[in-house]
Amino acid sequence: MKIGVVGLGLIGGSIFKDLKKLNYNVIAVSNSQCGEGIYKNYEVLKTCDFVFVCSAMNKTLEILDKLEEILPPDTVVTDVCSLKGFVSKKARPYKFVPSHPMAGTEHKGFENSFEGLFRGAKWVITPVFGEDSRLVELIEELGASPVITTPEKHDEAVALISHMPMVIAQAIFKTAAENPLALEIAASGFRDMTRLAMSNTEMANDMVQINSENIQISILKLYKTIGDLTNSDYLEQINEIKLNRQSWG
Amino acid sequence: MKIGVVGLGLIGGSIFKDLKKLNYNVIAVSNSQCGEGIYKNYEVLKTCDFVFVCSAMNKTLEILDKLEEILPPDTVVTDVCSLKGFVSKKARPYKFVPSHPMAGTEHKGFENSFEGLFRGAKWVITPVFGEDSRLVELIEELGASPVITTPEKHDEAVALISHMPMVIAQAIFKTAAENPLALEIAASGFRDMTRLAMSNTEMANDMVQINSENIQISILKLYKTIGDLTNSDYLEQINEIKLNRQSWG
Repeated sequence: MKIGVVGLGLIGGSIFKDLKKLNYNVIAVSNSQCGEGIYKNYEVLKTCDFVFVCSAMNKTLEILDKLEEILPPDTVVTDVCSLKGFVSKKARPYKFVPSHPMAGTEHKGFENSFEGLFRGAKWVITPVFGEDSRLVELIEELGASPVITTPEKHDEAVALISHMPMVIAQAIFKTAAENPLALEIAASGFRDMTRLAMSNTEMANDMVQINSENIQISILKLYKTIGDLTNSDYLEQINEIKLNRQSWG
Repeated sequence: MKIGVVGLGLIGGSIFKDLKKLNYNVIAVSNSQCGEGIYKNYEVLKTCDFVFVCSAMNKTLEILDKLEEILPPDTVVTDVCSLKGFVSKKARPYKFVPSHPMAGTEHKGFENSFEGLFRGAKWVITPVFGEDSRLVELIEELGASPVITTPEKHDEAVALISHMPMVIAQAIFKTAAENPLALEIAASGFRDMTRLAMSNTEMANDMVQINSENIQISILKLYKTIGDLTNSDYLEQINEIKLNRQSWG
């Protein structure tokens, strides 16, 4: 099986390195990287059986369109965007199975990509145009566990666990930064809590624009929870939260 | 110099282990621990030159009162409570210098305490009743850097960097936990962001009760920042936040 990777950032770079390690015949298309098996021209993807599209979210639709002119109908294509609704609106002449690996760090780019990034991670698949066992097999070979759901449920869930928390982390940092003593004495808890504020800003902006409705709903749900927490039996509630957090991991 | 430690939890235990390592003549008073140099009776503190009070926040005033009957006037006493206003309301017959080491983990108790917990940390001192150079020297020997301020400024700052973020972490976890898919696919960013929800619940409850006014003000400031972030140029603001977070460390 010949595999193509479009875009060699943190995710694409890590997939590329992993697949090489697994001895796949893998090639990449990248604007910014050079090296063995890395090309500028999309034409090289013509002979691939499988293509991972790992470009910036705001470039992904354009690339999925471009691939329509290049790939034969039996090529399997997945994208790795952290939102799944906007890519799932139209079927493609190739076998398109949108997905989202739940892995990453606060550092972006090929230079921060590494073998093993997906080990132990969940990898969401939203097979609106049909499933394909090759995607599931590749995900498992990368060490991740596939989770199948709809684009709508995915986009709602990531608003709760990723996009809303990122906006809150940014807001917590900005709020605390207005008090010079606060930043001077802040320690590891504050560092952990605000690490999400360091997310790739281009990606953060894309997420907040595209998923704004779900993020707004999540923020309102958060406000309601904060009200409940601080207005009724706090100790009882945090004991329960702690137990749930412990059993979650 | 003979040093006493009251309470062998995470903080008291770590101070005790550090001071032993530094070859100080150190004794401890603890209800729950046994061992060499660990006593149940406060009377043993009579001959100490310096006493660290490291009990639970809700027991600290009671212990500071009890020490009035035991300690001579030239003994230096500090407490390590994460709030400084409530302990700073009255002078003591001994030399009382309230302080707060900005170090900790989400794990509590002597079994989680360790040598070196304070290395590289800030240690706030609020010398409302006069300074004492021995406290500053001990803090530096433990590897921490003293920061001098008022109890009011301290309590405001910790609301912003610790208490409000903890409440928010608890609320984020509780909000996300209502969506089963969300918790199933949540990854490291969510784990970091909600680690503060694992704080010692007794201490969390004390902080939220005692510092409720500052926490409420911090939450309102946060709501304002969230509104500003999501209602005007998001990308420009998060680029600035990221630069500030980077230069903070």
